[in-house]
Amino acid sequence: MMKLHGAMISPNVRKAIIGFNIKGVEFEANNIVPGPDLKKPEYLAINPLGLIPALQDGDLTVGDSNIILQYLDEKYPEHPLMPEDPRDRAECRWIAEYAGSALFPLCFVVFRQNFVGPNFFKEPTDQALVDETVNEKLPPVLDYLEARTPDIGFLFGADLTIADISVLAMLITAAYGSYSVDGTRWPKLAAFVSRGLEHPAVAQALQAEKQMVEMIRAAGQN
Amino acid sequence: MMKLHGAMISPNVRKAIIGFNIKGVEFEANNIVPGPDLKKPEYLAINPLGLIPALQDGDLTVGDSNIILQYLDEKYPEHPLMPEDPRDRAECRWIAEYAGSALFPLCFVVFRQNFVGPNFFKEPTDQALVDETVNEKLPPVLDYLEARTPDIGFLFGADLTIADISVLAMLITAAYGSYSVDGTRWPKLAAFVSRGLEHPAVAQALQAEKQMVEMIRAAGQN
Repeated sequence: MMKLHGAMISPNVRKAIIGFNIKGVEFEANNIVPGPDLKKPEYLAINPLGLIPALQDGDLTVGDSNIILQYLDEKYPEHPLMPEDPRDRAECRWIAEYAGSALFPLCFVVFRQNFVGPNFFKEPTDQALVDETVNEKLPPVLDYLEARTPDIGFLFGADLTIADISVLAMLITAAYGSYSVDGTRWPKLAAFVSRGLEHPAVAQALQAEKQMVEMIRAAGQN
Repeated sequence: MMKLHGAMISPNVRKAIIGFNIKGVEFEANNIVPGPDLKKPEYLAINPLGLIPALQDGDLTVGDSNIILQYLDEKYPEHPLMPEDPRDRAECRWIAEYAGSALFPLCFVVFRQNFVGPNFFKEPTDQALVDETVNEKLPPVLDYLEARTPDIGFLFGADLTIADISVLAMLITAAYGSYSVDGTRWPKLAAFVSRGLEHPAVAQALQAEKQMVEMIRAAGQN
């Protein structure tokens, strides 16, 4: 059985889990949490970048959520995670990359400042940072995505691709920090997120991480 | 004709150029240089991450050298840039990613401190930074690559893949900063680099960037 390393509440690990769910393939989870454990020699032997997720399949070991998703897609061709046309494939990879580079750090700020920080680390929210993130930095990123979101279905047709999974996984992280896409300003993207959350593979991933989310929330009550 | 944005002396632009050379496809070059120009609205409309390279093919516009190489590979299947087996493909993408994340910043330090800084910007070399980069940070990265380098041919067979192109492009950047892989410590990798530099597509890329390199060297004489 393949082994997936990384805390399932991490957006990049969530991406891989959604991929496994779409393919209907079971995996063994090693719920390693970001922090000093990722810089230990044991983990650096798995992913020398010290990042999550990483996937082990026999003697193959790779990191990077987009690479893991493409590996799953090429190993299990049913329920494709990539469009077929070369142009669409390039744009699909690019949106996945853009979500990781532009959307991820902003969603993580909201997640950290509004959710994990106050609840788990008992740190006050840096409201100025949250305001700047939500009011100045996120809007152009959402504008870019809105322009690429269709009225129906997903970004490249009827089912989820690595681009959809990437965008959704990041916005779920922001949602834990009480941020949701404003449907009056980004109507297509907001509707896309609603459709995405209802997708069985996404719903299944959210169900699996619920316990960890509740644990963090409960820490805030103490 | 496709348009490639980015200074050809940048390692990530070099990667795309080597891909074009392997495919035997012509392109129009927009030699935009890293710096403030990448943050202007005109360029952000091409690549919202403000990074080079970016590729325009009609109404398709994508960034990221690995995505550009895979697009070229899927648009022009002859002279493949990817292995066939799903496991090899995953590892190929991963080594390309690793070269970009782990090798690139270190090679860039050497390039900047030993070549562009003193020659073009007339800034003294930060020798402590160079020593730390060369003596402490590069060795584990080269160890990782050495363990994956075969005695003959390239990383996944007889011809260059996106992984080979990524590793070579970064080490060429370091070579401008007078750094070369020590063949007594990393014999397979050093021999691989020698073979790579002799590859016609790589030699052609180096020839094309020669003028820019000489211009920077000449600036150092004034």
